[in-house]
Amino acid sequence: MDLKKYLGVALLLGGLLPLQAQHRNEIKVPDLDGYVTLKCDLHTHTVFSDGLVWPTVRIDEAYREGLDAISLTEHIEYRPHKKDIVADHNRSHEIVEKQAKNLDIILIKGSEITRPMAPGHFNAIFLQDSNPLDTEKYQDAFEAAKKQNAFIFWNHPGWDAQQPDTTLWWPEHTELYNKGCMNGIEVANGGSYFPEAVDWAIEKNLAILGTSDIHQPTTVSYDFAKGEHRTMSFVFAKERTAEGIREALDNGRTAAWYKDKVIGKEELLRPFFEKCIEVKEVKRDDTGVTLSITNVTDLPLSLTKTAHDTSLVYFRHYTLRPHTRHNIRIKFTNGIKGGDMNFRVDNFIVRTGKSMDYTIKL
Amino acid sequence: MDLKKYLGVALLLGGLLPLQAQHRNEIKVPDLDGYVTLKCDLHTHTVFSDGLVWPTVRIDEAYREGLDAISLTEHIEYRPHKKDIVADHNRSHEIVEKQAKNLDIILIKGSEITRPMAPGHFNAIFLQDSNPLDTEKYQDAFEAAKKQNAFIFWNHPGWDAQQPDTTLWWPEHTELYNKGCMNGIEVANGGSYFPEAVDWAIEKNLAILGTSDIHQPTTVSYDFAKGEHRTMSFVFAKERTAEGIREALDNGRTAAWYKDKVIGKEELLRPFFEKCIEVKEVKRDDTGVTLSITNVTDLPLSLTKTAHDTSLVYFRHYTLRPHTRHNIRIKFTNGIKGGDMNFRVDNFIVRTGKSMDYTIKL
Amino acid sequence: MDLKKYLGVALLLGGLLPLQAQHRNEIKVPDLDGYVTLKCDLHTHTVFSDGLVWPTVRIDEAYREGLDAISLTEHIEYRPHKKDIVADHNRSHEIVEKQAKNLDIILIKGSEITRPMAPGHFNAIFLQDSNPLDTEKYQDAFEAAKKQNAFIFWNHPGWDAQQPDTTLWWPEHTELYNKGCMNGIEVANGGSYFPEAVDWAIEKNLAILGTSDIHQPTTVSYDFAKGEHRTMSFVFAKERTAEGIREALDNGRTAAWYKDKVIGKEELLRPFFEKCIEVKEVKRDDTGVTLSITNVTDLPLSLTKTAHDTSLVYFRHYTLRPHTRHNIRIKFTNGIKGGDMNFRVDNFIVRTGKSMDYTIKL
Amino acid sequence: MDLKKYLGVALLLGGLLPLQAQHRNEIKVPDLDGYVTLKCDLHTHTVFSDGLVWPTVRIDEAYREGLDAISLTEHIEYRPHKKDIVADHNRSHEIVEKQAKNLDIILIKGSEITRPMAPGHFNAIFLQDSNPLDTEKYQDAFEAAKKQNAFIFWNHPGWDAQQPDTTLWWPEHTELYNKGCMNGIEVANGGSYFPEAVDWAIEKNLAILGTSDIHQPTTVSYDFAKGEHRTMSFVFAKERTAEGIREALDNGRTAAWYKDKVIGKEELLRPFFEKCIEVKEVKRDDTGVTLSITNVTDLPLSLTKTAHDTSLVYFRHYTLRPHTRHNIRIKFTNGIKGGDMNFRVDNFIVRTGKSMDYTIKL
Repeated sequence: MDLKKYLGVALLLGGLLPLQAQHRNEIKVPDLDGYVTLKCDLHTHTVFSDGLVWPTVRIDEAYREGLDAISLTEHIEYRPHKKDIVADHNRSHEIVEKQAKNLDIILIKGSEITRPMAPGHFNAIFLQDSNPLDTEKYQDAFEAAKKQNAFIFWNHPGWDAQQPDTTLWWPEHTELYNKGCMNGIEVANGGSYFPEAVDWAIEKNLAILGTSDIHQPTTVSYDFAKGEHRTMSFVFAKERTAEGIREALDNGRTAAWYKDKVIGKEELLRPFFEKCIEVKEVKRDDTGVTLSITNVTDLPLSLTKTAHDTSLVYFRHYTLRPHTRHNIRIKFTNGIKGGDMNFRVDNFIVRTGKSMDYTIKL
Repeated sequence: MDLKKYLGVALLLGGLLPLQAQHRNEIKVPDLDGYVTLKCDLHTHTVFSDGLVWPTVRIDEAYREGLDAISLTEHIEYRPHKKDIVADHNRSHEIVEKQAKNLDIILIKGSEITRPMAPGHFNAIFLQDSNPLDTEKYQDAFEAAKKQNAFIFWNHPGWDAQQPDTTLWWPEHTELYNKGCMNGIEVANGGSYFPEAVDWAIEKNLAILGTSDIHQPTTVSYDFAKGEHRTMSFVFAKERTAEGIREALDNGRTAAWYKDKVIGKEELLRPFFEKCIEVKEVKRDDTGVTLSITNVTDLPLSLTKTAHDTSLVYFRHYTLRPHTRHNIRIKFTNGIKGGDMNFRVDNFIVRTGKSMDYTIKL
Repeated sequence: MDLKKYLGVALLLGGLLPLQAQHRNEIKVPDLDGYVTLKCDLHTHTVFSDGLVWPTVRIDEAYREGLDAISLTEHIEYRPHKKDIVADHNRSHEIVEKQAKNLDIILIKGSEITRPMAPGHFNAIFLQDSNPLDTEKYQDAFEAAKKQNAFIFWNHPGWDAQQPDTTLWWPEHTELYNKGCMNGIEVANGGSYFPEAVDWAIEKNLAILGTSDIHQPTTVSYDFAKGEHRTMSFVFAKERTAEGIREALDNGRTAAWYKDKVIGKEELLRPFFEKCIEVKEVKRDDTGVTLSITNVTDLPLSLTKTAHDTSLVYFRHYTLRPHTRHNIRIKFTNGIKGGDMNFRVDNFIVRTGKSMDYTIKL
Repeated sequence: MDLKKYLGVALLLGGLLPLQAQHRNEIKVPDLDGYVTLKCDLHTHTVFSDGLVWPTVRIDEAYREGLDAISLTEHIEYRPHKKDIVADHNRSHEIVEKQAKNLDIILIKGSEITRPMAPGHFNAIFLQDSNPLDTEKYQDAFEAAKKQNAFIFWNHPGWDAQQPDTTLWWPEHTELYNKGCMNGIEVANGGSYFPEAVDWAIEKNLAILGTSDIHQPTTVSYDFAKGEHRTMSFVFAKERTAEGIREALDNGRTAAWYKDKVIGKEELLRPFFEKCIEVKEVKRDDTGVTLSITNVTDLPLSLTKTAHDTSLVYFRHYTLRPHTRHNIRIKFTNGIKGGDMNFRVDNFIVRTGKSMDYTIKL
């Protein structure tokens, strides 16, 4: 008697099985001219390393949360469930390939090289085979990844378990960097932010990345009902494909999205910001100008006035909540008829400790 | 070089690991005199059968959701992950024993006997060893459970995958019942409700159960931000222990909590309802009475007027939302000075298709 | 010294003033061929009768909640704030005319004729001047409304304060109806539903209406974070104008939206339902058909199987949550190769106590 | 025919009237030894000045949000609704006196002296009669308040409509302060925070206050489902009475609660913080200590490591979410067996630009 066969049929039919809640919540942020903004999480875990969900859950989550791409980057060296889960390093990726295709999620094969500091933890993505990375010496693991033309980035460079007091760049990092084994760096990972890494990324031309490093179901770590989102990367790609993502990573066209912050190069964040807002002049007379400013994105935009001609009188701080329109009055005093409305976009980070400045000419 | 050892240490220390969000949301429903109301989910799954989470997730969820007891009832016959997960039928329970103890969750060992209809699926709980239930003939599996003094209940009796048009009681069920192999029955399972099972339970003296049968993370299947809760059982126990639960099950002191409905025997639901509300007379004169009625529970209470002396004038429908207080006026007309305020508690189900009636004497 | 002048200027400028949270949440329900579905609330109150908000709040709410049209229908006869608020019956409407225009909300002038039963309370809308409705005899008030070519509807016909035990149609209603002074009827009002009124509406050709009758801020009465919505009417109009609404009301092209229920004539609800779902056949073989059914609306759709050929095997109940896609398998047994998949759409109400039936031909 | 009478009766009876949703959400923050922590909002508006709700709404809100005390501080000089609302300056307070008593909300009579800068806007509270404050010169208004022994505080000292670039202390403020006409100062008002005012308050011995200055329904300005709360003051009072609040204000025992920040004198915030957390040592051996730290409050507590002996290894940042328990490991290295675990509580502000430092001795 073949129990499994007709049990399987029964179970596939059943309304009792968990519903596939297929509602995709698109993330509303703008594209740059000539590029599409892909929302990517390139660092996640499942039960195949130390995560707590079956791999398919990660694809469902990615779909629901509006991601374009994901990578299941199981630890090579740390597999606490291995007594019960017997599989090689490619297995979790393999399990979800078909599902990702069905849901149109770009699946990028990756693994986490998991070593003590230095050099610490690194993700190698765009692999063909993860097994060769299981080596005794870390140098051999990087070599194996490099041989597959992987894109490699440093994970959580300021993780206090490995950098207890200061976020340091070690000689081992210089060595890896010089060998072409460090192509990107996380400036944000889950609930942690590493400000020092922003300047490193810009000075050394590393792709700036944010990732969730999620182990729990995302619904446990993020309270979506409160508007929270997983830490992720915006990748400004020429096309919505794995190749498009790779080309953008190789050319550093990325930003990290961490809580309210967008972190990236000023040359990318400036045109990005200009697409985040729609500004219209709705009234102008001798006493001032009224601008209608609409935030067309899911991002709050927090503005703080910077050095300016004090004859131009406007807000000191102003927050444009997501998807709101605001009529903002700028007053002319002392006989002026225009000028530069200068402010800082507090939550757009362009260097270590520095927000982006912006001017609206009136 | 023993990588695992100091990696393990590092990982245990880290702030980067998912936080244990240890906030327990207690479920506020009343106790009965002499009994404590335990919130129990006796039907759940993990990756060790066809569930999608590691077993520890189930205990964390139980803690956060305010449960008192849980059972991981993996399918004996249906294990779609077995290519990757190699373990016997006791393993998922074993993994969480220590964690459940630490969080003070009562863990009850159980398994799901998973057969085509008839007899369909049954849970055997209070087992010592699940492995003997892995038999070819279903009768042998029930026998093995019974030998361990298990408590056995029929799962989702109206599941449309096995009962496509009508919820039927089959000869096989009579046989199991007569052998003492059916001690309870689910009247609700996840998002499904089986009204016919209520009368069966009462007439055959089976414990009335509600369970989640959860496969996903609970946060995926239930929207807690919208006030949803998993389907579960209220067990009116003499003490908060596994033995207390068993004694209550054996004596049928249970009710199912499914969406807004509480389903159980009238002899239990009547005193339960009386503890759900606090009624005070705040004003009385010749024209009527004003009652202050406070709903002290997490349950909405939906009241509909039933046959009554029309000289007593009061609401036709009234909903007491959770944790709200209401001043309700009952008018005296035609010279009366009191009477019976009769209504039905729509969402307290005491028989198939029948809600509980209630009277406040004025 | 003219304090007010420069204080006014200061206050208009200030970032401290309550932000205009201008995010409009569009209600996603389909249009019918040749008609646009307007979301209308034709029964609301402000401080100018017994409501608790300044009139402008009602327009802000309407904008945020995605309404197309609103009417501020102050009680003519019941004005508990009149010791402090000194104004005629047109005043609240007048205050918001400009704001409604700016926010593109259709504002329809109306008033509530507020009398003891019979005839009870009625709204007269599409008035030019509300003051003539302030008469001693109710007949004169209706006459005054009729003279202005008002559209008049019966409010909350089953309100227990005026109909304590049964929803009755009184001789006074026949008289008003015969005089053309009853053109519509509320089948739902705020948190109350009046099933008897559905058949009355259909038999007497009255427009079927749902209204909020809101007195509080809507955020107090409805928990939008839990997905609640105010009770309202869907008006199937030829154009998005006041005239379009009037023409649709005069021709009975309306439905009420109350909690999960859509209540209306079957001839309207059938094509409406067909636009709520997208059905595609994704697989067909000898053993059955798999349909992909997508609910493209904000409405849950609750389906229950009705009488059918039992050789066709499919769900007994199925809920299509808002904006979800479902793969649903229908099995062929006993050698059939197709048939009628019959079900009831539980929450589409087409007569008193009757849901709409529907068939998908396979 | 007396329409009002029986209409009134009908309306009082009706289930259709807005339900009094009487669920009070208590704010969970600790008391100090010998004092009870009262949650007070001493700056609000209604339709009687430029607010948008009837006064009773403010009391309902206060009850639901768990406030202990409130003041309706209508503008004396700015009453944009006065064409329609005809009443003196005491009226809104008078309307709600009975309701506040019924709901056990402490109602403190106050008014807002609303002048151009300098001196700007001030609230005078604990008034007996607001009408004498309606004077031409601001000095006379302060004099009138002082004569009634009012407690007077400066509102939104950094409001950009009156202080466009810098938060300045004007000569007029020195004059008022010297006359005893400035007893407190808002460091936070609605969505705005004025860091400069913290040092002023401490140096000049002014009570530190946070207020909502709410004009909209609070549900519009604050998203309670996302855990937001109105800006308010914690008053550490000897008793829960108006007199208790006055005594605490006079002696500067207050703090402001603004978003995640608690702002106050270090001598108050230190013992307050110590009651916010429960610390237990759960394990100690040669390699370190494990502390169980429970945050027993509604406040998140954000901790950042400060200067310390680097042989003691612990987190760099740690956030204790509300009502969560955390096991935190502190490692001993280099042979130490204990030491000082130093950190900053980022969101406890004790001076302009300075958070509170804290040490746990191990």
